[in-house]
Amino acid sequence: MTVEKLSVVGTRVRKVDGYELVTGKAKYAGDMRFPGLVYGYAARSKVCAGRITRIGIDAARKAEGVLAVFTGKDIPGLNLIGVLPPHDQPVLATDVIRYAGESIALVVATSHQAARRAARLVELDIEPFEPILSAEDALKEGARKIHESGNVTYAKKLVKGDAEKGFAQADVILENTYTTSNQDHAYIEPEVVCVIPSGDGRVTVYASCQSPFHLRGLIAANLALPASRVRVVQAYTGGSFGGKDDVASEIGILATVAAMKLGRPVTIAHEREESMIGSTLRHSARITIKTGAKKDGTLVARRISILLDGGAYASESPFVTMKTMVHSPGPYRIDNIYVESTTAYTNKTYCGAFRGFGVPQVTFASESQMDELALKLGMDPLQLRLKNALRAGDANATGQSFETSVGLVETINAIDARRKTLPALPASDDHWLYGRGISCMLQGISNGAEGVDVVGASVQLSQDGSAVVAVGLTELGQGGRTVYAQITAEVLGIPLSKVTVRQVDTDTVHDSGPTVASRSTTVGGMAVKIAAVEVKKSLVSMAALMFKTDEKLIVLKDDFAMLSVDENARIPLRDVATAAYWTGFPLMNLSFSHAPDAAFDHETHQGRIYIAYGYATHLFDIRVERGTGKVEILRHLACHDVGKVVNPVGLEGQVEGGSLFGFGLAHMEEILFRDGRIINANFADYALPSIKDRLPTETMIVEDANPTGPYGAKGVGEPPVAGAASAFANAVADATGIRFRKLPITRQDILVALKRAEAGR
Amino acid sequence: MTVEKLSVVGTRVRKVDGYELVTGKAKYAGDMRFPGLVYGYAARSKVCAGRITRIGIDAARKAEGVLAVFTGKDIPGLNLIGVLPPHDQPVLATDVIRYAGESIALVVATSHQAARRAARLVELDIEPFEPILSAEDALKEGARKIHESGNVTYAKKLVKGDAEKGFAQADVILENTYTTSNQDHAYIEPEVVCVIPSGDGRVTVYASCQSPFHLRGLIAANLALPASRVRVVQAYTGGSFGGKDDVASEIGILATVAAMKLGRPVTIAHEREESMIGSTLRHSARITIKTGAKKDGTLVARRISILLDGGAYASESPFVTMKTMVHSPGPYRIDNIYVESTTAYTNKTYCGAFRGFGVPQVTFASESQMDELALKLGMDPLQLRLKNALRAGDANATGQSFETSVGLVETINAIDARRKTLPALPASDDHWLYGRGISCMLQGISNGAEGVDVVGASVQLSQDGSAVVAVGLTELGQGGRTVYAQITAEVLGIPLSKVTVRQVDTDTVHDSGPTVASRSTTVGGMAVKIAAVEVKKSLVSMAALMFKTDEKLIVLKDDFAMLSVDENARIPLRDVATAAYWTGFPLMNLSFSHAPDAAFDHETHQGRIYIAYGYATHLFDIRVERGTGKVEILRHLACHDVGKVVNPVGLEGQVEGGSLFGFGLAHMEEILFRDGRIINANFADYALPSIKDRLPTETMIVEDANPTGPYGAKGVGEPPVAGAASAFANAVADATGIRFRKLPITRQDILVALKRAEAGR
Repeated sequence: MTVEKLSVVGTRVRKVDGYELVTGKAKYAGDMRFPGLVYGYAARSKVCAGRITRIGIDAARKAEGVLAVFTGKDIPGLNLIGVLPPHDQPVLATDVIRYAGESIALVVATSHQAARRAARLVELDIEPFEPILSAEDALKEGARKIHESGNVTYAKKLVKGDAEKGFAQADVILENTYTTSNQDHAYIEPEVVCVIPSGDGRVTVYASCQSPFHLRGLIAANLALPASRVRVVQAYTGGSFGGKDDVASEIGILATVAAMKLGRPVTIAHEREESMIGSTLRHSARITIKTGAKKDGTLVARRISILLDGGAYASESPFVTMKTMVHSPGPYRIDNIYVESTTAYTNKTYCGAFRGFGVPQVTFASESQMDELALKLGMDPLQLRLKNALRAGDANATGQSFETSVGLVETINAIDARRKTLPALPASDDHWLYGRGISCMLQGISNGAEGVDVVGASVQLSQDGSAVVAVGLTELGQGGRTVYAQITAEVLGIPLSKVTVRQVDTDTVHDSGPTVASRSTTVGGMAVKIAAVEVKKSLVSMAALMFKTDEKLIVLKDDFAMLSVDENARIPLRDVATAAYWTGFPLMNLSFSHAPDAAFDHETHQGRIYIAYGYATHLFDIRVERGTGKVEILRHLACHDVGKVVNPVGLEGQVEGGSLFGFGLAHMEEILFRDGRIINANFADYALPSIKDRLPTETMIVEDANPTGPYGAKGVGEPPVAGAASAFANAVADATGIRFRKLPITRQDILVALKRAEAGR
Repeated sequence: MTVEKLSVVGTRVRKVDGYELVTGKAKYAGDMRFPGLVYGYAARSKVCAGRITRIGIDAARKAEGVLAVFTGKDIPGLNLIGVLPPHDQPVLATDVIRYAGESIALVVATSHQAARRAARLVELDIEPFEPILSAEDALKEGARKIHESGNVTYAKKLVKGDAEKGFAQADVILENTYTTSNQDHAYIEPEVVCVIPSGDGRVTVYASCQSPFHLRGLIAANLALPASRVRVVQAYTGGSFGGKDDVASEIGILATVAAMKLGRPVTIAHEREESMIGSTLRHSARITIKTGAKKDGTLVARRISILLDGGAYASESPFVTMKTMVHSPGPYRIDNIYVESTTAYTNKTYCGAFRGFGVPQVTFASESQMDELALKLGMDPLQLRLKNALRAGDANATGQSFETSVGLVETINAIDARRKTLPALPASDDHWLYGRGISCMLQGISNGAEGVDVVGASVQLSQDGSAVVAVGLTELGQGGRTVYAQITAEVLGIPLSKVTVRQVDTDTVHDSGPTVASRSTTVGGMAVKIAAVEVKKSLVSMAALMFKTDEKLIVLKDDFAMLSVDENARIPLRDVATAAYWTGFPLMNLSFSHAPDAAFDHETHQGRIYIAYGYATHLFDIRVERGTGKVEILRHLACHDVGKVVNPVGLEGQVEGGSLFGFGLAHMEEILFRDGRIINANFADYALPSIKDRLPTETMIVEDANPTGPYGAKGVGEPPVAGAASAFANAVADATGIRFRKLPITRQDILVALKRAEAGR
């Protein structure tokens, strides 16, 4: 690969939408007001399981300010949502209640408050079922079927080599079970939609959402309209992290039903409680890992059993099931692997996509056991990992090998080098226990086996040399718009300030699937680059005509077309663009990046599953206060192989933010249920990291160029979550000498365990 | 050309936007309301010429409800508009006033009424100039220069053969001068914009406009912003007819200046008077034609001198100048032609694009003289035209010859055949004078020599088999959206109801230039067809995979993919679309149609000027009431060669509407000036056809396929204007025996002339 000299990509730039975000000028869906706007609020079930005998809406209908109350019968189409067909989740439940919080009716009123008050008047008569509240119970023989199809949401196996033969060769075998809790996405902005009937049989849906095309398709199917009659425009979105998908469909459909029936704009804005009980959570998991190793640390076999609690509906559970399976063996060369992963339905809030997509849970389990193994073998944990780390050309868990962009060893070495420069941790004393934890991880980039991986992007250059970019993936705070602007500016040789990247409008780009799986930079960036390169061709052709020279000699840079042999010979790009327009060269292009398709055996999951993997090594130095269990983070190193950095500022933001998510998962966050109902659905009772908990993250970078990404880039939205959560757990074990095989490891957990250990001493 | 079997194109379909238009659901820019919306109103000069010494805005600023008053100094960029560089028209005049009605300040207030009241308080101190009120005066030696460059807006010559030699061979020579008046576009909806600052340094401009990209470019240049920061969305537009271009820029810029400075949404909605005095009119013209013919009627030479009054600014005058020149010799084989056409600046409301674009004026002159010639030669007017009519392979006035799609003779023959079936006109009696007039005409289709002719269009198919189409040309009532929907439905084999055609949004398609020159169907339709064909390829490929057969055997029809050899073997198109999406076939395409460029000698205008011409023959039977001058239309035949009819309903609408425009021009409409001020700027004093004047038009069609249009189509938006105006004038002459060499020929004109003729008898 020849090294391109880059002038925008790789430089530190401010987020292109930073100004309006910090000044409050950015328009969120909840900021939108239209004449005649009315407000929707869903009535929800308080019980988690039962057969509906009656939904009484008369009282609600008569309440002050109420315009209409809709039930499932008012939905003209499917009354079903879900990420994958066959969709299994009603928009409004009509027959069966499967979780506490399920929507049963939509009240529309002249104010949010009036709708909320009236929603409480909706009556739900129910013939209750015995709730099924754990995946284990769901899978017991004879358990009541939550869905007609049974209680297995999805189940898959991965088979590589022969695990039993592998264990036969092992000198050491460990087997442990690890559990993790549910986690809430906890975005600052809860879910909001605002739907406007545009008077031509079409509706425009402004939504805080992650997958506008998905939303469009489900609105069309539920309204029994052609999708071409529905336009979804992503409003500024205050975080999503995987969360604003099914729930955005639910409220999008409800608001559209109301808007079409009433002929008025309708908004639905979730309150925090609704956002927590009525939308997807991170899957809780029970993971049993058996690992066999030689005395020298060489891993010879892993057998892993994963059980995920998927809650009441499927959502993304099938893909999460698969992703946990593929990632659970960790970023290591292991010849013999057997993994089975199962998600079960339960009568709890449903689980779905969540930054990391199952990888944090299984990485926590795998990396905890790696430390336990190192302890047993008396090896340095970093050396144990280095010994087994995947290298270019190695076959990974699915038997796939990559010739390039496998930078794990480099991340381990970088962390190793860095730790040698650090002062030794103080010895633990009566007050503080000191510890260090490390972790290694990998994360498949982009959809891979989870579906076709196509992103559409258009680049339109105006005659004045400024560009409008549209991409089918959403900006959710991850900095995608900035990356796309940088790539466009780089290719066309124009300043970043002349590039505008739009929010997604389904009318304007190719259905690009969901904005998940760290796809934005990799597949989205590639689409932008391809489109920009096409526009560049027109500029180069025009400039060559103007210079009366060969196209090969034309360079676009610094807002000029110039000759590579004499950069003083230059024409302002706006003049070239104007001339190109009037000469008939196209100045707009719509292109697609289509990542290589997955190809694998569906029984064993051996084959090409992802187009690339991100790799990382994390290190935490912590101290734990003996008397209180309080954990203080002294240091956090996060070294990621990202292929190529596009915007160092954005990258640091992603690593810091993702690590804090991992820290929350590992130390603070836990959804608590009582009789199937979430009892801490608010930010007072649900502890999550605040700005005070910001980690002292030191972002370190390895650039092992990825041929499937723009300029070699790989996404980094998700990997830090797993890296940080796992390293934190190992640091706690190192400090306390106690292995916690559950997440979160809360201050209370630590204190109780320390007290118990002291008492046992 | 093999004949395709078509199932949607060519069938009678309802306008796709008809429902919302007739039910009032369609949202016009004036219907838009946003929180905090404020209203702009321009203060205008009452005098038509002078140097500004002071603009006093203090009183206006202090008026009730006023938020701000802006003058030209507040415009950050050019303070210039115009269709062609160098732009010559200030947005707000700062130094010189060139016409009565010119904007000098913008008042922004909390209501339209408050802004309007305050605008009257703006004081304009002026050092007056002697106004120049006719093109003849403007071109007199020593005339005051209205612009620094002088008073010639544009002047061009066409030279074919040798006119003088031609006249030498003539048996008969006629020379006459014809004049026409200004005409107002008189759309139902006056000009409106509504501008919303979107909080990210961008603005969205909803506009009733004809050329959104033009508007975007001028807003950017006047705001000193990159064009990528401006998004123009065409609102439903209640007619334009060429009119909503410069004026849309003027109010678009003013509203954007106010919106950016105030940080609020701003709307400006013209009242009727503003629409008439402050935006372009049809050029008034003085046309002198000298024609030489043999005894047998063969035309041997024409020498034509055209003088257009362009008013205060250039607008589209250069192109109108050229178009009058090219079309003035008429649709005839004439070997020797000399035309000079000049537009002059005057101190009157400026003139610009207007349905027909100069062709009605020169066709009236040319066709009047053809009748005068027929009379002199004692020939049947239709036979004289048939004898000289352009046929395939003939060189037209610019020396260009077309091998196909020259259907003039067929239109003449069709009218001739039809008239033979008609009862003879009654003989004139004491009360009624009966007469018949015919005309032939041609009209260059599309931009041609007027600029690059590129249109962008995108077709996006959803997984459910419905399509969204975006085109860079505007729907102005001409039925473009319906034509585009038909073409898409035809290509993809889906029902029309599954196709949605968007209004133009500059973010989403390639700059496609202005929607003028009957380009919509021809060049726009071609772009849609190209894009749809690309999407079709994906469907065909997918269907072939599904059928496990060859792509050549796949037919898309009736919402199915089927086998050509067995139409019972069929898969619903939505299933094919879904499968194609998940297989990675692109379902969206952005394409361009690029009409062949013009190529001609700029001195003589010999060469390729237009990609095609439309041809027509019109016939009017009328009777004139001797005692009152009242004209009754008994019959109107309009036979057009349109290449291929896409939607017969839309075509009839265009022919009927265009003919009524021609009738208005010929019989009713006249802008009246006193001291340079328009004195009939309202619909009480400006007579124009109402629904009661609807013509009994019988639309007749010739289809001589045009290879440069989709399915052979040629546009027909403009041609009926010239055809009807000219045939009407000839009918009046035939009925009254009096040749009126001016338009309009009003009832009063006729009455006065009849009385005078009687008196002279």
